[in-house]
Amino acid sequence: MGITERLSAFRGQMKKDGIDVVMVPTADSHASEYIADHFKTRQWLCGFTGSAGTLVVALGEAALFTDGRYFIQAERQLEGSGVTLMRMGTPGTPTLEEYLLSLAKAGQTVGMDFSLVSGTQADEFGKKLSAQGAQLVDTGDWFDALWEDRPAMPDAKAFALEERYAGRSVSDKLEAIREVMREQNAAAHVCNVLDDIAWTLNVRGGDVLNTPVVMSYLIVTLEDAAWFVDEDKVDAELHAALEAAGVAVRPYGAIEAALSALPVGSRVLGDRSKLTARLCAAMGQAEVVQHENPAFRMKAVKNEAELENLRRAHIKDGLAVTRLMYWLKTNIGKLPMTEISVSDKLLALRKEQEGYISLSFNTICAYRANAAMMHYSATPETDAVLEPRDLLLIDSGGQYLEGTTDVTRTFALGEVQQEQKKHFTAVLCSMLNLANAKFLHGCTGIALDILARGPIWDMGIDYRCGTGHGVGYLLSVHEGPNSFRWYKSATRSEDTVMEAGMVTTDEPGVYIEGSHGIRTENELVCRELERNEYGQFMGFETITCVPIDLDAVLPEEMTVRQRGWLNDYHTFVRETLLPLMADDAEREWLRQATRAI
Amino acid sequence: MGITERLSAFRGQMKKDGIDVVMVPTADSHASEYIADHFKTRQWLCGFTGSAGTLVVALGEAALFTDGRYFIQAERQLEGSGVTLMRMGTPGTPTLEEYLLSLAKAGQTVGMDFSLVSGTQADEFGKKLSAQGAQLVDTGDWFDALWEDRPAMPDAKAFALEERYAGRSVSDKLEAIREVMREQNAAAHVCNVLDDIAWTLNVRGGDVLNTPVVMSYLIVTLEDAAWFVDEDKVDAELHAALEAAGVAVRPYGAIEAALSALPVGSRVLGDRSKLTARLCAAMGQAEVVQHENPAFRMKAVKNEAELENLRRAHIKDGLAVTRLMYWLKTNIGKLPMTEISVSDKLLALRKEQEGYISLSFNTICAYRANAAMMHYSATPETDAVLEPRDLLLIDSGGQYLEGTTDVTRTFALGEVQQEQKKHFTAVLCSMLNLANAKFLHGCTGIALDILARGPIWDMGIDYRCGTGHGVGYLLSVHEGPNSFRWYKSATRSEDTVMEAGMVTTDEPGVYIEGSHGIRTENELVCRELERNEYGQFMGFETITCVPIDLDAVLPEEMTVRQRGWLNDYHTFVRETLLPLMADDAEREWLRQATRAI
Repeated sequence: MGITERLSAFRGQMKKDGIDVVMVPTADSHASEYIADHFKTRQWLCGFTGSAGTLVVALGEAALFTDGRYFIQAERQLEGSGVTLMRMGTPGTPTLEEYLLSLAKAGQTVGMDFSLVSGTQADEFGKKLSAQGAQLVDTGDWFDALWEDRPAMPDAKAFALEERYAGRSVSDKLEAIREVMREQNAAAHVCNVLDDIAWTLNVRGGDVLNTPVVMSYLIVTLEDAAWFVDEDKVDAELHAALEAAGVAVRPYGAIEAALSALPVGSRVLGDRSKLTARLCAAMGQAEVVQHENPAFRMKAVKNEAELENLRRAHIKDGLAVTRLMYWLKTNIGKLPMTEISVSDKLLALRKEQEGYISLSFNTICAYRANAAMMHYSATPETDAVLEPRDLLLIDSGGQYLEGTTDVTRTFALGEVQQEQKKHFTAVLCSMLNLANAKFLHGCTGIALDILARGPIWDMGIDYRCGTGHGVGYLLSVHEGPNSFRWYKSATRSEDTVMEAGMVTTDEPGVYIEGSHGIRTENELVCRELERNEYGQFMGFETITCVPIDLDAVLPEEMTVRQRGWLNDYHTFVRETLLPLMADDAEREWLRQATRAI
Repeated sequence: MGITERLSAFRGQMKKDGIDVVMVPTADSHASEYIADHFKTRQWLCGFTGSAGTLVVALGEAALFTDGRYFIQAERQLEGSGVTLMRMGTPGTPTLEEYLLSLAKAGQTVGMDFSLVSGTQADEFGKKLSAQGAQLVDTGDWFDALWEDRPAMPDAKAFALEERYAGRSVSDKLEAIREVMREQNAAAHVCNVLDDIAWTLNVRGGDVLNTPVVMSYLIVTLEDAAWFVDEDKVDAELHAALEAAGVAVRPYGAIEAALSALPVGSRVLGDRSKLTARLCAAMGQAEVVQHENPAFRMKAVKNEAELENLRRAHIKDGLAVTRLMYWLKTNIGKLPMTEISVSDKLLALRKEQEGYISLSFNTICAYRANAAMMHYSATPETDAVLEPRDLLLIDSGGQYLEGTTDVTRTFALGEVQQEQKKHFTAVLCSMLNLANAKFLHGCTGIALDILARGPIWDMGIDYRCGTGHGVGYLLSVHEGPNSFRWYKSATRSEDTVMEAGMVTTDEPGVYIEGSHGIRTENELVCRELERNEYGQFMGFETITCVPIDLDAVLPEEMTVRQRGWLNDYHTFVRETLLPLMADDAEREWLRQATRAI
């Protein structure tokens, strides 16, 4: 079935149900950043494969809203579909809301699958629509019927994350959540966010690519808790472990009935910006106490066991990337290499590591100008052949029982232009400035960002994204609320104070369109330093363990202090990895690659 | 009359009026930072002379609330008065509000002079008091009767600031304010803040020490405006100039009647956190549209004429401070000098400058350990004798027709300990790092602060205050909303974006109790740099023009870049001031003082 047939079948359903306009978002029922294939209905319906985009279908027209990363790709993929591309943020383009409101005439009906939009979203749209005489309805999920070979709901097995990895018992975490509930005078808490649930219950799974979560819901009351999950995923052992912590296992589909059964007027703590409109509606008799999920901030502060494990994960992961670096440096120009073949080689090296589970996101391996596209992902059509010259950027990470990693290195494959070395050195200084910051407790990411961004701004360049994001523990590679960024945005938590135990990436870059892209990324653990009459000083511990390519560094562009920081880092890398390298040749190379400058 | 007699007379008035507790704040009717002597009733009543403090008097007890700057002074001055000192912010000390609420029993009456507290304050206190069965009443001003030799209301003449100084006509400013009123659908705007009024009407005066404002109120309607001011202050020329701009002059005391006469239900734009409770009450029939005074943000962005004038003011002011530096350096150990005599010498040098009006604040001249007290002000009792060794800190500024200045230099009077030189150099690097920042438009003071504070934090030290504050134009030396600080506080505007034309001080420091204090302060004008595909880049122009004492600098502690910045600055100082120095000896000294390092 081609795109036009699919849209035509979809419009048939609209007419049948008497609905004039439908919004099809890119979402699952859990406010996830990455969604399982089962939920990729927008992609199926209009043919656009990008990770972000919202489709609006009316009987006479249709439009796809997406952002700057995807303009070129979307234009190509939508060709001939009859779907108009709406380039979000460009002058003259309406917002999604403006467009939707302009389509919905008085007396008309707008539909959405309420299991894919948040309670807040549905409330706001609903109010605006009714103000102009239109109405919002829940369409339910039409795609099971329309989409013949629709992928099934994911069915990966769940497993218990042992306490030696999680560092804290389920009972203890539930008690911490109940403390927030008591403060808010709430009798129950309902959560649909998969990483918050996985953290709370010390469970992991494989339902979302590269993010080891389990599709499920959680209700915590002051006395007990219930985990709503496909019971086939839960083996007897996990069942027993949860039961011991007072957590009952109930069917995934039973969540709505459970919410409807909450006593009339009972106070339920929940985040309506994450809970689906369907769940909010099911709680109609209860009073929702708006509150971010307690697990959201709790899981951001890693405990000592998690940190100890993370250090181990980074040694394993660093060894894989360092061995790739050795292989690249010694074989470039001798063996055939492409962006994809190098990604595969890196994957093979990671798989050799004990406790490796999966990648933590799709590897970005980008040569020359491809690296200037921040979200580039090599395809067979774009896959560049690597030559013994210029820069190769590799941004990748792994999921281990010991945690999640995210690391970027940019490698000189041979001769590199002087300007690119200058940019490489500026990015290195940026990364080091932030990693070696010392600051009083109370600083937010906004107060620290310029330490990294300053050297790039000094060149009249900006990297147009945050300097870094939080990282989960064997969970999502992008985790809030901590981040480094300089500007405020409505949906982020820049006012979050950097707390000891938070793990945040430090990844400044330079991206010159049509020419080159450079990024150097280490992960930083926030730590307490001395406490004195001025307050509690804080700093960072770097846990990423991979050499930074000295072949692209101009030492004369660095201060004495910055060179000292780099040399100290390379000493750490050398001392950590030298015993783990495969042979004398690798060891000799590592000594050279981590030499003091 | 001693303090106990004053308090006893005050309590007599309380009994007469049936009031159980009275709050006496440090305030005038204009939300001023510095208040005229007429308003220093709290000081008269309890004997404490500090600039900040609130007195609470009940029939059986009394307490003074003040902050850490004044604990020692207040303890001494309150001795024997029967007034308890409440050390704000120290553990176990109630807040002012907690204390007040604890005193006011059900059925009792709490009094305040509603012409000294804001509408917001009175509302909040009033609600909390009535929740516990007590009530808040307006006492009016009791002090005219109690305080025999009370200073009169200030009566300095007002004068028009010519457009060549103000850079913008009154009509133009009123029109800009009316635009905000129209956006807010307001028919009138009422303002009681003296610098906002002075800026709007291009008038200046002398009613507050070192701040050339005129005690007055302003009402702007869409058609006209009225300035409520003691008419003796306004000469015929100023009268005519205002009339030409559509501004009527009316008696200071007529403001309440004018507000009461506003049409029922008319929308009046005003800031209830600044307007007194008395004024808010007078507007009872109108609807107050809560909004900061439009002039507040407008006046922060200096126009090109103001900036051109400010550069001239800083050359004059810089010449005075530089000549003082020469005098100090050549005469220390030869002539007798004390903190006060040096302040007087500096005042004399400033007075030689054309267009000089007054100081912009009381000069801080602090030797050795005295400089570690950030708000130290020499008195005959503390006045230290200067010797040819160690550090002298001088923080001072002037009011000129060409604008307001604020500059701090720390001078080596002879040999200085190595640790103090290290601190001096760190402070210098801090100041230079911020002054030479390059950043994208959109940055706030919070995003920039660490550029200055970082080198101090690196030493495990903090300076416990903002890095800098906005400065008025021939107005208050402390002016919002721009500032550099790293933490959020409820009453500040840290989210203010740095805009081209804002003038902000850059004054990091090191203060070591009992030993020494170092501060180096330049004023920075925010300017646009290049605009490119990344956005609008911004930077600073330094307008303060005084050498930085190289005798206290350790060049080896500075990066090449920082030394370059310092040398460039000294070249600017030398080229600007050399033609203005008095004689060859001064010129030769200046060449040496501004030599490249």
